[in-house]
Amino acid sequence: MAGQARALANGAEWIDFQTDPTRYKHWKLGTDGDIATLKMDVDENGGLFEGYQLKLNSYDIGVDIELADALQRLRFEHPQVKVVILRSAKERVFCAGANIRMLAGSTHAHKVNFCKFTNETRNGMEDSSAHSGQRFICVVNGAAAGGGYELALAADHIILADDGSSSVALPEVPLLAVLPGTGGLTRVVDKRKVRRDHADFFCTTEEGVKGRRAVQWRLVDETVPNSRLEAKVTARAKEFAAASKRDGSGRGIALTPLERRFEAHSVHYGFVTVEINRAERLATITIKAPEAEAPSSVDSIAEQGASFWPLQVARELDDAILHLRINELEIAAIVFKTIGESARVSSYDSLLHANRDHWLANEILHYWKRVLKRIDVTSRTLVALVEPGSCFAGTLAELVLAADRSYMLVGEKEGDNRGPATMMLHEVNFGSYPMSHGLTRLQQRLIADPDQLEDAHGKIGRPLEGDEAEDLGLVTFALDDIDWEDEIRVFLEARASFSPDSLTGMEANLRFVGPETMESKIFARLTAWQNWIFQRPNAVGEEGALLRYGTGQKANFDTQRV
Amino acid sequence: MAGQARALANGAEWIDFQTDPTRYKHWKLGTDGDIATLKMDVDENGGLFEGYQLKLNSYDIGVDIELADALQRLRFEHPQVKVVILRSAKERVFCAGANIRMLAGSTHAHKVNFCKFTNETRNGMEDSSAHSGQRFICVVNGAAAGGGYELALAADHIILADDGSSSVALPEVPLLAVLPGTGGLTRVVDKRKVRRDHADFFCTTEEGVKGRRAVQWRLVDETVPNSRLEAKVTARAKEFAAASKRDGSGRGIALTPLERRFEAHSVHYGFVTVEINRAERLATITIKAPEAEAPSSVDSIAEQGASFWPLQVARELDDAILHLRINELEIAAIVFKTIGESARVSSYDSLLHANRDHWLANEILHYWKRVLKRIDVTSRTLVALVEPGSCFAGTLAELVLAADRSYMLVGEKEGDNRGPATMMLHEVNFGSYPMSHGLTRLQQRLIADPDQLEDAHGKIGRPLEGDEAEDLGLVTFALDDIDWEDEIRVFLEARASFSPDSLTGMEANLRFVGPETMESKIFARLTAWQNWIFQRPNAVGEEGALLRYGTGQKANFDTQRV
Repeated sequence: MAGQARALANGAEWIDFQTDPTRYKHWKLGTDGDIATLKMDVDENGGLFEGYQLKLNSYDIGVDIELADALQRLRFEHPQVKVVILRSAKERVFCAGANIRMLAGSTHAHKVNFCKFTNETRNGMEDSSAHSGQRFICVVNGAAAGGGYELALAADHIILADDGSSSVALPEVPLLAVLPGTGGLTRVVDKRKVRRDHADFFCTTEEGVKGRRAVQWRLVDETVPNSRLEAKVTARAKEFAAASKRDGSGRGIALTPLERRFEAHSVHYGFVTVEINRAERLATITIKAPEAEAPSSVDSIAEQGASFWPLQVARELDDAILHLRINELEIAAIVFKTIGESARVSSYDSLLHANRDHWLANEILHYWKRVLKRIDVTSRTLVALVEPGSCFAGTLAELVLAADRSYMLVGEKEGDNRGPATMMLHEVNFGSYPMSHGLTRLQQRLIADPDQLEDAHGKIGRPLEGDEAEDLGLVTFALDDIDWEDEIRVFLEARASFSPDSLTGMEANLRFVGPETMESKIFARLTAWQNWIFQRPNAVGEEGALLRYGTGQKANFDTQRV
Repeated sequence: MAGQARALANGAEWIDFQTDPTRYKHWKLGTDGDIATLKMDVDENGGLFEGYQLKLNSYDIGVDIELADALQRLRFEHPQVKVVILRSAKERVFCAGANIRMLAGSTHAHKVNFCKFTNETRNGMEDSSAHSGQRFICVVNGAAAGGGYELALAADHIILADDGSSSVALPEVPLLAVLPGTGGLTRVVDKRKVRRDHADFFCTTEEGVKGRRAVQWRLVDETVPNSRLEAKVTARAKEFAAASKRDGSGRGIALTPLERRFEAHSVHYGFVTVEINRAERLATITIKAPEAEAPSSVDSIAEQGASFWPLQVARELDDAILHLRINELEIAAIVFKTIGESARVSSYDSLLHANRDHWLANEILHYWKRVLKRIDVTSRTLVALVEPGSCFAGTLAELVLAADRSYMLVGEKEGDNRGPATMMLHEVNFGSYPMSHGLTRLQQRLIADPDQLEDAHGKIGRPLEGDEAEDLGLVTFALDDIDWEDEIRVFLEARASFSPDSLTGMEANLRFVGPETMESKIFARLTAWQNWIFQRPNAVGEEGALLRYGTGQKANFDTQRV
């Protein structure tokens, strides 16, 4: 089996998800009025790990971290941008997809984490388009293969150069014995509605499809001869900008560097703290409420910028989750705690919700939505502890609803004079934060009885103590002080004793009740099958296709069908 | 890794899916007016493979083959039955689920095939309830654990004995490091709408849940003390019978034994032939049209019984598919061919469709629906070849639509004077045979352009030659005689050269476009994650939970989360 962990390049000890354009190695972001151009120009020698070169605009997670950063900045720092042109800065190649040698040398856990993050990033492009009005036009000049074409698939519009050689391809099955697992299979048939037998042909044809057939089969939107390509790109950009729902008049805010401090057993941000207990395989994330009520005017959001409480917490929490996911693989459970005044948390929710049509409030709400979705697909046991002094209100209450299990303390805690724990619902719990499958966490939770959802709506703004929260279905167990420590300790110990894999599979099924969307199908059908294949010797064995790729030796397959 | 293939018991060389009540070892089927009772009474020593005992009503695929047979006979042979009481004939145990030693000693392919078939059988119970009005009441007296509770979950109504010990449980995660993979996780949250945090508790609690909590959490419908249990079961059976939409006045037909002949390289049925080319890893299934037009009256369907052409072909095709799936693992592609008069095929479709409200026509149409669904989840490359002399009309045209790729010959074939190949659509293609995700194969195929679906509807009953069928989107490629042999040979050779695993994953994603239902989620989310876990050392390794189960040694887990 492949799976030796590679060393990170330049002596790095962990993977950092924070970057900014001044540090990009692989992308060039430029703006011109309402049009931005995002050029992929991967530095061959800039791989995040040692042992491979990123040739032909192939990528590793380091390349994708920059892309995710650029997309985020486009939304917050460039409100005037209505169209993003995504293209390659290299001649005759758009993007060769995920780097094969990187994949072949990765642990199973890294393969899975890599795909999860790149999927989230591509979903994020579609989220920009749908909710921020930043439409993506992808210009494919050269070959867009595998993950390269999957990147194009995340755009709203694909223009393929008609030059006799530019092509789109998903060669994973014939070439590598794995799947186009970054949404490729799903987007081909579900988003672009390529007929499934055409898709079958396309996905088993190493060299891909070009020219007229690519348009006829809906793989791209149009092909344009090189002589007219630039003019066409400009025209399409103008057309898409004119049709964008983005207001464009706002003033961007700077996403200044997060203030973080990494210690041996903790990570400290401004409002978020992560305590890591490796002996018990436990990470506790504590979020502090703001120190005062929200300002009353929408203009103050932009004035406060990156230090506006909801935005700062979202960025800190996002970074903390990503860090735990990829750098702390032994952690079995993530426990969410909060500290502070619920009323202050709610005042920020109210400010955002009242101004949800304002571009920046809209961005912050959608960013929280994405952070919460990231938590939904984080394969750790998620626990929320609602204790005296906590502030699980509105947006923060989503963490309780996102948890696999939640405990709430009833009454007072010995030696704690802060009064009983409460939760508080807010209008944001009823529509602002849909999960990837389209339901809100409350809708899904109370799916058996819609009346309960109405009851819950009627409680908006009221502090709910343990018994009432339990009756409303908001928490799993409401416990007295006398049972609190023991119950939770026993639960967390049991959790740490189970097979991590069976928990991952269980979560993937129990967390998504009811309908599916294209996005949720990517994490369900596609990712689960890809993870299976990432365990199969035909892909990852010594004689499998990933290790044999580029060696001149053919892979040797077990020909049994499963 | 586990995975040594066990030997079949009694020197059998392959697994046979045909049985009948006179041969049942594990079930007792009795009827009393409109109520049937199906009792599970597994013969410990009647395992299909050597090396394990089926204690405590645990099961292997042999037990499930009998269950599937009983369900099928209930629909066809017992039209008077409106309610099926599903219970155990053993004291103090309902069913302990899939036999662990069987699972631990099975190959990966057998695990996957076993789960696929048991899933189809449980989906079939729900299909009986929804479309034949045979409602299932499950009486749990004793422990229903794992697959035992999953069997109960397929029923419409679960009555749990309230005796202080009878319980329902899904102990797979804590006990075996695998998932409740026969629909358990999905049905708990999607069908029974158990709240996901309650489900989290339930699925990680070895001993399960009993009594009042089982009802409160929606795990069962009611609990009844033993003293009143039988009276309650009788009352519920009457109540469900009274509410059944099943007419109940029809006269059953006997599902007489299939006439089959197994040869070294073929299987011969009455209208279906399977040619097996192991060198090229190819199975060709040829279906012969009826020898005359359909009778005109609905009564003749019952008179012809099991030899009524559509019913006989459905049974033969079902058996052939199941045989190839489990006994011919090296076969890479299944090629569908037909021979005969399209008009005759259509005449049978018309008879069935015109009488679709008649109980027996209804059963035959729904049986075809299930056979076609079975094909949809068969992990082999599915190919349809539409040649001169073929009869891909109506129901048989679904095989073209189910194929991953189809080829149609344009014009005449050299030396063949039968005239050009044609396909023919029928009303049955527009609603009688929905796939597991709720769309018909034509709806899914033409999802990009609903106008095309209307065009296709306008062509019902017209023989469509190659070019027209291609234009309508019905076949992948229409080829001249000159290209025919070569193109298909090259395609099939390429297919056989690819990794079987990557093809399995690709099919699972490309074949189901658009929406998902509970049933399709079981084959997508749940099955894919379970298959992944079935590859993980934590479950199937030498120190994994499946092999260590019952040895007194604890499993040794890799604690990294993926």
